[in-house]
Amino acid sequence: MSKCIDFYFDYSSPYGYLASERIDDIAARLGYTIIWRPMLLGVIFKVTGQGPLTETPLKGEYSVRDFGRSAREHKVAYQHPDKFPIGAIAASRATLWLRDNIDPDLKARTGDFIHALYRAYFAAGQDITDATVIAGIADSLAIDSQTLQLAISTQAVKDALRLEVEQAITAGVFGSPTMMINGEPFWGHDRLEQMERWISSGGW
Amino acid sequence: MSKCIDFYFDYSSPYGYLASERIDDIAARLGYTIIWRPMLLGVIFKVTGQGPLTETPLKGEYSVRDFGRSAREHKVAYQHPDKFPIGAIAASRATLWLRDNIDPDLKARTGDFIHALYRAYFAAGQDITDATVIAGIADSLAIDSQTLQLAISTQAVKDALRLEVEQAITAGVFGSPTMMINGEPFWGHDRLEQMERWISSGGW
Repeated sequence: MSKCIDFYFDYSSPYGYLASERIDDIAARLGYTIIWRPMLLGVIFKVTGQGPLTETPLKGEYSVRDFGRSAREHKVAYQHPDKFPIGAIAASRATLWLRDNIDPDLKARTGDFIHALYRAYFAAGQDITDATVIAGIADSLAIDSQTLQLAISTQAVKDALRLEVEQAITAGVFGSPTMMINGEPFWGHDRLEQMERWISSGGW
Repeated sequence: MSKCIDFYFDYSSPYGYLASERIDDIAARLGYTIIWRPMLLGVIFKVTGQGPLTETPLKGEYSVRDFGRSAREHKVAYQHPDKFPIGAIAASRATLWLRDNIDPDLKARTGDFIHALYRAYFAAGQDITDATVIAGIADSLAIDSQTLQLAISTQAVKDALRLEVEQAITAGVFGSPTMMINGEPFWGHDRLEQMERWISSGGW
């Protein structure tokens, strides 16, 4: 049994953001490693026939109310973005390029990069589909933004994201965040506690 | 501020069942009263455009797996029904007839009746759309089944259910269970803990 949490997320997902702000502490408590898995809900929704949470009548209003309420409970800064949802393709490609980088120093900055992007979008009102915003975040973490821009336009990195999304679908992922523990899926920010109990107790 | 938990549920909802098995203890701890609110997701789905959880690709497989997993965690007996989902119109009408009954002795049996119906469907493999099953459950609780059968075929009780569902939609209910605390909605079995923290702390 690996001691890994596969953390599937979409950059446009409020609950993905909230969970990303809590998962480091949880993983540290458990002695688990996080494997960051950016994916694109837009592609997955074509398989499931679903759509963005906020566009469903009744559920949409509840969701927007709950984003802020759940953020306040966990003392996470949250400001619902004006431009929502987004298709964060460049940000997702950049994340994969970092995560799978041959340079261990760059690789090690993956988590920080994800947190910075998520906070830019959900707390600082920035548009993370904008290449200059992504470049600014990269530079602030000493990741050369010119190298990054070149890398994410290569076919190899484009293919990496396509394969990552296909892998997520094969694994049964349909929503963000999904935490997978040795094949056991937990969907939703509100399942972090259950996931932690599952790992701590060895399952039930 | 009333000390009430409006508990909206559909008899066909596994998460409604799981929550119903835990809500009495939670309400007792908090000193709150449960107001049982049966509703029909089939009607609500026409407003939201959603469908049964188990019929969504990927999400459906996760859900069935999670019903049993969440039941085991909370030591609730669960056996996924062969006939699923159902439209439990008669059971819902019977519940309203009891809940709003002028006879306080009958009224007081509402919770027991709900638990018995839910357990019959989700733990004992019974078909609670069958009038004889409902009658058997009523009789076992000393609720005269002939009176009940007559009552639920009256226009007044039919109207009561229709109004109850309309009221649920007006209140913003889109899923089962939904717990409403003085207008603050909590959707899902997995939000019981958050709801309890909200009430205990006075909100945030």
